Amino acid sequence: MTFAALDSSITGPLFATEAMRTVFSDQARLGAMLRMEAALARAQTSLGLVPDGLAPAIEAISPEAIDLEALGCGTALAGVPAIPFVKAVQARLPPALEASFHKGATTQDVVDTALVLQMRDAFDVIEADLAVILDGLSRLAAERRDTVCAGRSYGQHAAPITFGFKVAVWLTGLYEMAGQLPWLRKRVLVASLGGPVGTLAGLGDKGPAVVDAVAHELGLETAPGTWHTLRARMAETGTWLATLIGTLAMMAVDIGHLASTEVGEVAEPYVPGRGGSSAMPHKRNPVSSTVIMASQTAAKGHLVTLLDAMAAAHERSAGGWHGEWHALPSLFGSASGALHEARPLAEGLVIHSNQMRANLDLIRGLLFADAAATRLAPQLGREEAHKPVERAAAEVRQTGESLQKTVLARLAPISIEEAFDLTPAIQASGLWVDRALAEAAPIRNSLSRKR
Amino acid sequence: MTFAALDSSITGPLFATEAMRTVFSDQARLGAMLRMEAALARAQTSLGLVPDGLAPAIEAISPEAIDLEALGCGTALAGVPAIPFVKAVQARLPPALEASFHKGATTQDVVDTALVLQMRDAFDVIEADLAVILDGLSRLAAERRDTVCAGRSYGQHAAPITFGFKVAVWLTGLYEMAGQLPWLRKRVLVASLGGPVGTLAGLGDKGPAVVDAVAHELGLETAPGTWHTLRARMAETGTWLATLIGTLAMMAVDIGHLASTEVGEVAEPYVPGRGGSSAMPHKRNPVSSTVIMASQTAAKGHLVTLLDAMAAAHERSAGGWHGEWHALPSLFGSASGALHEARPLAEGLVIHSNQMRANLDLIRGLLFADAAATRLAPQLGREEAHKPVERAAAEVRQTGESLQKTVLARLAPISIEEAFDLTPAIQASGLWVDRALAEAAPIRNSLSRKR
Amino acid sequence: MTFAALDSSITGPLFATEAMRTVFSDQARLGAMLRMEAALARAQTSLGLVPDGLAPAIEAISPEAIDLEALGCGTALAGVPAIPFVKAVQARLPPALEASFHKGATTQDVVDTALVLQMRDAFDVIEADLAVILDGLSRLAAERRDTVCAGRSYGQHAAPITFGFKVAVWLTGLYEMAGQLPWLRKRVLVASLGGPVGTLAGLGDKGPAVVDAVAHELGLETAPGTWHTLRARMAETGTWLATLIGTLAMMAVDIGHLASTEVGEVAEPYVPGRGGSSAMPHKRNPVSSTVIMASQTAAKGHLVTLLDAMAAAHERSAGGWHGEWHALPSLFGSASGALHEARPLAEGLVIHSNQMRANLDLIRGLLFADAAATRLAPQLGREEAHKPVERAAAEVRQTGESLQKTVLARLAPISIEEAFDLTPAIQASGLWVDRALAEAAPIRNSLSRKR
Amino acid sequence: MTFAALDSSITGPLFATEAMRTVFSDQARLGAMLRMEAALARAQTSLGLVPDGLAPAIEAISPEAIDLEALGCGTALAGVPAIPFVKAVQARLPPALEASFHKGATTQDVVDTALVLQMRDAFDVIEADLAVILDGLSRLAAERRDTVCAGRSYGQHAAPITFGFKVAVWLTGLYEMAGQLPWLRKRVLVASLGGPVGTLAGLGDKGPAVVDAVAHELGLETAPGTWHTLRARMAETGTWLATLIGTLAMMAVDIGHLASTEVGEVAEPYVPGRGGSSAMPHKRNPVSSTVIMASQTAAKGHLVTLLDAMAAAHERSAGGWHGEWHALPSLFGSASGALHEARPLAEGLVIHSNQMRANLDLIRGLLFADAAATRLAPQLGREEAHKPVERAAAEVRQTGESLQKTVLARLAPISIEEAFDLTPAIQASGLWVDRALAEAAPIRNSLSRKR
Repeated sequence: MTFAALDSSITGPLFATEAMRTVFSDQARLGAMLRMEAALARAQTSLGLVPDGLAPAIEAISPEAIDLEALGCGTALAGVPAIPFVKAVQARLPPALEASFHKGATTQDVVDTALVLQMRDAFDVIEADLAVILDGLSRLAAERRDTVCAGRSYGQHAAPITFGFKVAVWLTGLYEMAGQLPWLRKRVLVASLGGPVGTLAGLGDKGPAVVDAVAHELGLETAPGTWHTLRARMAETGTWLATLIGTLAMMAVDIGHLASTEVGEVAEPYVPGRGGSSAMPHKRNPVSSTVIMASQTAAKGHLVTLLDAMAAAHERSAGGWHGEWHALPSLFGSASGALHEARPLAEGLVIHSNQMRANLDLIRGLLFADAAATRLAPQLGREEAHKPVERAAAEVRQTGESLQKTVLARLAPISIEEAFDLTPAIQASGLWVDRALAEAAPIRNSLSRKR
Repeated sequence: MTFAALDSSITGPLFATEAMRTVFSDQARLGAMLRMEAALARAQTSLGLVPDGLAPAIEAISPEAIDLEALGCGTALAGVPAIPFVKAVQARLPPALEASFHKGATTQDVVDTALVLQMRDAFDVIEADLAVILDGLSRLAAERRDTVCAGRSYGQHAAPITFGFKVAVWLTGLYEMAGQLPWLRKRVLVASLGGPVGTLAGLGDKGPAVVDAVAHELGLETAPGTWHTLRARMAETGTWLATLIGTLAMMAVDIGHLASTEVGEVAEPYVPGRGGSSAMPHKRNPVSSTVIMASQTAAKGHLVTLLDAMAAAHERSAGGWHGEWHALPSLFGSASGALHEARPLAEGLVIHSNQMRANLDLIRGLLFADAAATRLAPQLGREEAHKPVERAAAEVRQTGESLQKTVLARLAPISIEEAFDLTPAIQASGLWVDRALAEAAPIRNSLSRKR
Repeated sequence: MTFAALDSSITGPLFATEAMRTVFSDQARLGAMLRMEAALARAQTSLGLVPDGLAPAIEAISPEAIDLEALGCGTALAGVPAIPFVKAVQARLPPALEASFHKGATTQDVVDTALVLQMRDAFDVIEADLAVILDGLSRLAAERRDTVCAGRSYGQHAAPITFGFKVAVWLTGLYEMAGQLPWLRKRVLVASLGGPVGTLAGLGDKGPAVVDAVAHELGLETAPGTWHTLRARMAETGTWLATLIGTLAMMAVDIGHLASTEVGEVAEPYVPGRGGSSAMPHKRNPVSSTVIMASQTAAKGHLVTLLDAMAAAHERSAGGWHGEWHALPSLFGSASGALHEARPLAEGLVIHSNQMRANLDLIRGLLFADAAATRLAPQLGREEAHKPVERAAAEVRQTGESLQKTVLARLAPISIEEAFDLTPAIQASGLWVDRALAEAAPIRNSLSRKR
Repeated sequence: MTFAALDSSITGPLFATEAMRTVFSDQARLGAMLRMEAALARAQTSLGLVPDGLAPAIEAISPEAIDLEALGCGTALAGVPAIPFVKAVQARLPPALEASFHKGATTQDVVDTALVLQMRDAFDVIEADLAVILDGLSRLAAERRDTVCAGRSYGQHAAPITFGFKVAVWLTGLYEMAGQLPWLRKRVLVASLGGPVGTLAGLGDKGPAVVDAVAHELGLETAPGTWHTLRARMAETGTWLATLIGTLAMMAVDIGHLASTEVGEVAEPYVPGRGGSSAMPHKRNPVSSTVIMASQTAAKGHLVTLLDAMAAAHERSAGGWHGEWHALPSLFGSASGALHEARPLAEGLVIHSNQMRANLDLIRGLLFADAAATRLAPQLGREEAHKPVERAAAEVRQTGESLQKTVLARLAPISIEEAFDLTPAIQASGLWVDRALAEAAPIRNSLSRKR
């Protein structure tokens, strides 16, 4: 059973966590479907629509009691899982209660609400991981607030920054995602109950009251009306997950590059047996950033599926809605693996600050060419100031001597040593680190660390 | 100049509006870049960083004064538009001000902030169209609150609803999107200013103050730090647009089907010359829903591009960021065309309520099979009640006689005529129409209708 | 274990076949990895590089003997499955052979070649299904060669065709895909063997000979060099699968619409228990076309993943290659389900030719407006001929009378009855049916029906 | 007119070539539509269906004579470009010929065949660029056949290769794509002519003959039947383009990394004014590889659009087909820009072989750890041989001394100096370079270099 790498016994543990796997297991799905039916029964009981005994009778049924294989056969025949599911549950109910079961509801009510319950658990798993990562990155940014390193654009050294600044940018991306969670939960953790065509006509004028009561029973939000064919919630959930993965990928790209042989500024935390090669005993591959990048590679396409499903026809689409099942849980799976691998990066990244400093010298002061010219300008005029620096830069490229020496040799009487001072870069970086830490704090504090 | 159908003189007018085209014209882009530079100058003037005359001098330059062709050549050479742009502007400034222009900023600051200014104008265009559409759909839902028609699932008649209920679902999808606009504007209409590596080190300790002042000048939000490499904003904007298009597509799918020859329940408003065929004089193709569906077909892939761009390397990515330029304005273009075509649908859809009523009878009462059995249950018991209805349903399929007649013939002494009453379906539908109209009202009222 | 709907015990049987599931099971993957290692050993034995006993010793190991759970843990630790796999196999080899196992090879050689072996089996599964479908559609096109029905564009009746013609178009799309299989097999069923960096330097000058021998052992093609980082083969395989699914979806869209309540021209073959509704006893949903459409919804995004993986860095990418595992087997799974559901459609579609004929009359002869005008032209002149027809068409729209009667009433002395003759449409359709059947025949004959 | 970056006067020249822009200009599209109509007239003349004068009269009309703006307005009204196009052409024909124009054809025939004619020109543009690139890479691979450098996996040094080997892999990817061109041309450069519903019933029994004659006139292939709704050809063309871009991206990723500050092994050919920064005078950004990566970022999503369009309904889809217009020409545009930037890389990449050699020493011989152990094995036994090397490798990591010195110090009496010899890696690399050059030669020779 392993079309998806996420579900394989071999590769699954690399790409998704056990905690998330449990949330989306077939047993958990069945359990959530049963919880939905029980909540429906309880809501209808309170409105006098079904007998008192129905809800307890449903709650007494364990997901394990339902034969998965038979359910699969039944689904392949019927075309949707709810039909064999309803039959299987009815077979376990006292005959007198059978007819009241699933009253007024339709397949999509049970399937969608069950998925929403699983999504709620999945958000909990994600939130706990995000809390650990934000904590780790906050600590790292603070510790490395003033550790100078090269800022890079287009793969080239651009100007000095601090490593703490770089971490603060990762942190900002992630706390912004975390900060959206309360809004997202409110938006998407919504009960679905509309009956065959969304009107709940089978419940007479009690439809709206039943919807509200079911949502209350399950601790979910109530939608203003049916969302059988309004699938924006699923697309928005998928986007949040894909954007989260993309934000982690931004960090992973940096770490993968900084850990490369020539750069050598960081290393993923060493774990014996990790990152080796069957052929090359000396290899220490950056496995965590590789897994995160694989999630990024795989995540984007699922968004296409979720957006495609939005063009739902009439009161129930044929194919679009079912397509969501192929995409959304997989995005949660990929996110879980990416977060799991981001945790050790946030908590234990190995920093080689000497190498950071050494790499800064690689282009022999050219990073400071602009600063040098700026310093000369007040004395020589802007145009005149640029000329000696430009000539000096050309010399640096040829001779391999440093810009500082070359310029100073040329301009002995004028002192511009401070142009080669890293302090302004460090100070400017620090300002932003402080700002990011301050912004991150309330979000970190708001996150649940349960599980 | 027409790789994209949106930009072609031939097909462009079909797929995007002139208003949106103006927002994303090259001239508008240049104008926005100049506004950003002027705001930067004004901000820096107030902090004593550049001469007083700089901002007015920039503001005196018209986008038309800049040679687009030369700018294009310069961009192809330099690799980014800001380098030739800066040169072109400097050439138009008094020499004494040249050196102060673009101080501390980098290419991406100008390009991203200019794009954000265009996005703000684009949201205005969208908001005005959304207001018209929400108004039209609200009116239509109210008017057709009790017009009965078939609810359909999987392309099959399922149970009766009202056409107003169907419109209320369209309305709900769209007011939910409109309701997210204030949040989205706040989130993504953010100035970008970070300098070469995001630290604004060139401005000493005045970096944060300049960022705040620039944002204030432009009426934009301030990000907590650089977002050069945090591209979630672009992905979120793209998702909102794609989800909006998907929501419109949901309506277009319904209308395209309802307007089909066999169904014939609605028609797109008739415009002479519209929807004809070069070969078939009798054709009236549903052009508006076709254009919306074409937008849906084209939109999804752009999300992939925006999500891909998230994995940005270090302080500026090589390729990802540039990829966004291929996707985001095109999504605005597609959205404009889809909204433009949704307006006449919302305001002038032709309703054939007789045909709706006639189609309901197509399956000769089978829609009421469940209701009939439910009615019999109290008298016969549930199991016993199902049997005569089941047998009658089989007869209906063979004889073509209606279920009502067939059942009544069989059960003469028991009256179940009310089972064939459409009133409950109409009443249940109406409840949800009212709820949707009530929820839509405050959002409709909040939308700006300017332009 | 069910992030993917394809892998779920509940929904998996609906979306993928047992045959394809077996091909991509974890056991099958292990088996293929062992076959690759055995072939490598055999190839190296023949060149004197490893001891004679190695290949038989590997072949003696059953996939069942390897602990899947331990392998999963090892993979999560190491980052790639080959490292724990190699250790697990070595633990089952005589100590003297251990050191010769996996000689010169790298992880990707084993994983990619194993996948290629699975793909070969998967193509066999697909080919057998395609053969059945092409046979069924050929029969159906021949039988319905002259069954007249409406041709539709933009959802509107356009002009008459025959149902056989429509089926011939479906057939053409599918035999074209089938006709590409030999090319595709030759292109992608290629052994991978390059060693750590693609040069096989560890085998001295025998590298190329070993590659050729391994490919020969496995019945695979030899690539001209390493394809560790040349991933076009995977993208091309994925495209073929997605295009196949798209071609099936084109048929499913037609059938779903033709089976809709108002059109009623076809029905999916009736299977008791299929297509029902938990809420609506009368429903017969088109499950087969729904499953095919769900495959189409889910397939497209996987192509993005495969194309993304092409931008592989240096001699092995970090993340891109792993991303392929998330996409390619899933595409095979989705294709299997879509083909499985296309079989009954091709072999047993229920045709309501009376309804086809009845629907043709729905627009009361307007379909023939152009033909009528054309007939009058020789006698009245083109301009003059159009006028009475145009006026008649307007009358038809208002009165509901047929075009034929309306025109004839107006033009009593001129006979244009033959303009309303369906024969030309039937004859023209038949020509293309014959052509499609003739083109399909050799491809049908070339397909293997084994399994 | 610039929703798409490809079409902007500012950014367009960076991302697409003038040659390709000309192919897809609105004028060229009109020209191709006129050529299709002229070919149709000529074909029908030869079969006696239209007057002799029609074809010459069409050929006398220049695309410039048609008012683009009016055509755009007409398209926005009618919903398809062919209706106003047909009217505009008819207005320029002698009245007697008007009625014979566009006989039997439908919109899609003209639009699709015109696109196919543009695609043929576009393939010529691509082929000429590919020829230059294959020549350049062949030369480079031959020149650098034995220039040793690090092979890298997961960003880490793995084992030595030669730079020529790396180039040979790039070359292989590209000649494989070039080698598919003849097949692709034959498959997709096919005339479209089916009339309103694909049967060409309006031409009586002469339909097939007219199709053949039109294809012959235009030098195109004949499809076995209508492909109005069989869109695999478009998806296959798009895939080939996206795969080509992906193959170029694989090269660009390598070059971008090798050109990075710390690695410094190559540089893009220096062009004054290229790759600078508005803020940083010392920058030399790798613009060519950046443009190629931007193409890769933007290309993938378009495939989604083309695959989506495959699910076409009945005899003409509403929205899917139109969606193709948003995607396919853009893919050609992106490919043109990527190829244009690959040319200087293939022809003028600057190689720093000293730096390649120097980087090899960065991990102080650890690359040879396996080779060293292998050398010792015959004398010490495999297990015993590994131990001293392992201990030595640990020492290397701590002391910074080279592996060679550390091992030799430990094993003075045993000579394993040859384990540190680069010759085997160079020789093995060379074998594959030779093979790639030999395979590339016939494909290079087959490519047209015209233009």
